[in-house]
Amino acid sequence: MRSLILIAHGSRRETSNEEVRALAAKLASMSHRFDSVTCAFLELAEPSIPNGIEACVQQGAKDIVILPYFLSAGRHVVEDIPALVQPKQAQYPELNIELKSYLGAAESLPALLMALVD
Amino acid sequence: MRSLILIAHGSRRETSNEEVRALAAKLASMSHRFDSVTCAFLELAEPSIPNGIEACVQQGAKDIVILPYFLSAGRHVVEDIPALVQPKQAQYPELNIELKSYLGAAESLPALLMALVD
Repeated sequence: MRSLILIAHGSRRETSNEEVRALAAKLASMSHRFDSVTCAFLELAEPSIPNGIEACVQQGAKDIVILPYFLSAGRHVVEDIPALVQPKQAQYPELNIELKSYLGAAESLPALLMALVD
Repeated sequence: MRSLILIAHGSRRETSNEEVRALAAKLASMSHRFDSVTCAFLELAEPSIPNGIEACVQQGAKDIVILPYFLSAGRHVVEDIPALVQPKQAQYPELNIELKSYLGAAESLPALLMALVD
């Protein structure tokens, strides 16, 4: 079983968290390569990143792809997210966790931005 | 003259602000419809949004498109950015300022995200 987890920062505004949950549901409906697509939050919202990974494991995931839904390579992306993923990898050595680069680094993002304004 | 301003939050980490400036430069190199592409920051970095708009006006911009480089419709997108744009519009009634929707609302974003992981 292969799972995708979209990681967002989390907000005090629940509507912002709901936007992320709706996006994860949208991705789930689009994907043929993942058996589940969920989201998790760095802070201020549930599930946390460890709990999000744990939920996938409990559902039988053997492969988990983690996609940080962040625009810049700040401390959250560089330090905080890896620091939360690593203990779960250590806890489940046979689990294959792949931590992807953050959205802001996507080579296709500039073209998307230009399409929004051109 | 037609100008695009990419609006980012701004960070205490100067490398994050530099990422945004580099992105604006990249967009400038891609665009045929804008005479200038710059960036401005809501807080913590320069130029501010009013100063970014003012710079475009001083360079002769008649049309300014503003694209919020934000992922969720938080207070910054819903209230703070419009509140900073509006006084510049009032100051220059003949200037045509178009405030676009934020990146996170882009219909094309889910497909881009899936392409990053599929």
